Amino acid sequence: MHSHRSSLGTLLHHVHVSGPLSRAELGERMGVNRSTVLALTSELVAAGLVREEPPTGVTRAGRPSLVVRPESERVFVIAFDVAVDRLTAARVGLGGQILDRRSAARSRAGADLETVVRQLAGMGRELIAAVPAGSMCAGLGAAYCGMIRPGDGMVRYGPEMGWVDQAFGAELARALGLGLPVAVGNEAHLGALAEFERGAGRGSPDLVYLHGDVGVGGGILVGGKLLGGDAGYGCEVGHMLVNPTDGRPCLCGSRGCLEAETGEYALLAAAGRAGTDPERNAGLGRDAVGQAGAEIGWEAVRAVVRDAAGGDRDAAAAVAEIGDWLGIGVANLINLFNPAVVIFGGMLRDVYGAAAPQVSARIARHAMPVSRERAKLRVSELAGDATLIGAADLGFAALLNDPLSPSRTPRLTAGIRR
Amino acid sequence: MHSHRSSLGTLLHHVHVSGPLSRAELGERMGVNRSTVLALTSELVAAGLVREEPPTGVTRAGRPSLVVRPESERVFVIAFDVAVDRLTAARVGLGGQILDRRSAARSRAGADLETVVRQLAGMGRELIAAVPAGSMCAGLGAAYCGMIRPGDGMVRYGPEMGWVDQAFGAELARALGLGLPVAVGNEAHLGALAEFERGAGRGSPDLVYLHGDVGVGGGILVGGKLLGGDAGYGCEVGHMLVNPTDGRPCLCGSRGCLEAETGEYALLAAAGRAGTDPERNAGLGRDAVGQAGAEIGWEAVRAVVRDAAGGDRDAAAAVAEIGDWLGIGVANLINLFNPAVVIFGGMLRDVYGAAAPQVSARIARHAMPVSRERAKLRVSELAGDATLIGAADLGFAALLNDPLSPSRTPRLTAGIRR
Repeated sequence: MHSHRSSLGTLLHHVHVSGPLSRAELGERMGVNRSTVLALTSELVAAGLVREEPPTGVTRAGRPSLVVRPESERVFVIAFDVAVDRLTAARVGLGGQILDRRSAARSRAGADLETVVRQLAGMGRELIAAVPAGSMCAGLGAAYCGMIRPGDGMVRYGPEMGWVDQAFGAELARALGLGLPVAVGNEAHLGALAEFERGAGRGSPDLVYLHGDVGVGGGILVGGKLLGGDAGYGCEVGHMLVNPTDGRPCLCGSRGCLEAETGEYALLAAAGRAGTDPERNAGLGRDAVGQAGAEIGWEAVRAVVRDAAGGDRDAAAAVAEIGDWLGIGVANLINLFNPAVVIFGGMLRDVYGAAAPQVSARIARHAMPVSRERAKLRVSELAGDATLIGAADLGFAALLNDPLSPSRTPRLTAGIRR
Repeated sequence: MHSHRSSLGTLLHHVHVSGPLSRAELGERMGVNRSTVLALTSELVAAGLVREEPPTGVTRAGRPSLVVRPESERVFVIAFDVAVDRLTAARVGLGGQILDRRSAARSRAGADLETVVRQLAGMGRELIAAVPAGSMCAGLGAAYCGMIRPGDGMVRYGPEMGWVDQAFGAELARALGLGLPVAVGNEAHLGALAEFERGAGRGSPDLVYLHGDVGVGGGILVGGKLLGGDAGYGCEVGHMLVNPTDGRPCLCGSRGCLEAETGEYALLAAAGRAGTDPERNAGLGRDAVGQAGAEIGWEAVRAVVRDAAGGDRDAAAAVAEIGDWLGIGVANLINLFNPAVVIFGGMLRDVYGAAAPQVSARIARHAMPVSRERAKLRVSELAGDATLIGAADLGFAALLNDPLSPSRTPRLTAGIRR
């Protein structure tokens, strides 16, 4: 039974990640024969998880192999993404399509658990209310910009929002009231997994994903698995000390961390733009940043990058300086992880786009030739949606693990309003 | 059949790592019943790999469970260890006991492949010549102080010895002429695995092992497996850049690498001791170091540590300075890997013993509280033998993977002189 269940999950995972596949392709990928694919598909069709249909756009001699397509409109998760400046919720269909989305800018001030949960739950309820009749909610997933305790979604530490030991997963599940748990992961961890499944990391089970979201997070896959470490708190790339001599202050209380040297505050400060001192954002002074009226966030980062390209010397110098530190961090990660690919996501997608020469020069200088000889540098293919798609995949995990679990059937229709 | 073979290997691995175990203990560890243990043991006894005997030193009511003991005197590997200053070869019995050993100091000058292989092969032949009648050579393993290509034991890069792309494994196997391949691994990788199996890392599948051998190497286990990365070149901890501002020169050509700041040259230079400038050791000046007559190597490191404890202010300052950099490196590794334990091996065992306060202070300052809350700091339990025991385990790997492989039987008696 276990093997049969796991085969059902494997087939569903293939169409979830790759989209419609013919029975022949499925058989080849899974190493099973056609009759097994047929039997597995029939069960998944009966459960309403996939459907079979003739292939589109291909004419061939002989009877075409039917394609197995995920029921993307019918089977969905609600995915949440808590970034420093923005809250997002989306209905994501089996197959990874974003079917519906709500988002709201968030002030960097007033980031208490209750407020954030209330806003997210409101968005979630709106999405659920708009669901077509007959849909099935397979799960709930959330990405958060901080360190997450595996198992219960407790935020152990979220320096950008000032959170320590906040029961985010449990509170969001309670506020949603769907009778479903919310699976929570660190945003960069989830972004790494999403890029591995569907983005710039496809086919590269050893990869490093760097995510810029005011600070800098990391998600590192070792042999296709997220590097968790002893208790699930590995990959804290952003707090790798790269500048011990005259480092910029970091929200974590240290100085010279990779995120202090390459994050939004560093870039804006280096470019001489206002309202960007992280010390003013820490502790009592936290409210000062947003209120000062200075441009902050992703748009501010993009403005520096754009101005640098347009000939602004201060902006260009800032991009080069940040690129130098980013390159040092990446060189260290290449030495430690010998990754097949390093992926720049979130704001770092923009920063790397402008600072690639500095990054590459530092890698050439500080990474061992043997460690870097096959390492590719890429920008996120999922771009702004990497963390949200990763959260959705977290929500789908239980379904993909055991698609026909009897304990899930009641859940599948829970919370659906007609 | 596969499952049966793998059970034979599992049983043999248990007694190899833990020493004599009762049938009852084996059954419990393997989750199989007594009759299965009995059957597996009988096959291994017949193959001459284990024997059964009454337990020693325990008196109990009822018939005592026989203990299964590895045939440590009879089944052996030859293990080699190429450190910067010393070549070692040992006959190591099943169970991990060092039964016989040869070693020779090595000059830092004149480290060409041919010379090293000739010396090692000579030691190996001496060890083989002294083997008791009826013994079985199960394999050959070697630890090397550099980056090793998996599969063929090619040294891709060994900066301390100036090696690039040297066919070490193949040449050593050829020189030994036993008809057996030599499995080669990086010394710190093998030390990490040995400490996990038998030392300070027992029970900690997520660990970081740091090995001081002039330079600094690292072996990192993630979920019980060595972090290899895309091509097997992960764990290059020693070339993590920690001091980008005014770093000491490193043999790799960069400056401010962890090994440049915490290795032997850094400690001796900081203590004001002579003949220790790595730039003089690089390129044409390489011969200068040994010839200058200055004390170098492990004894020189221990002398600084001893003098620091004895009140020598220069030595104490040097230890503190190196401890600071070591702490920064360890803090970074804790942030990245969330290890259960960090183990200091080789020369770093001595350095950490003296500089623990600096190391701990840096970890407290630069590692995330959530990442470090459960991380323990330990010194190597296998001490000077960690890398040699790791090399032996590499030599035993094929036997433990498939103890009764028909293709191995001829090998088992190969090369044995009576």
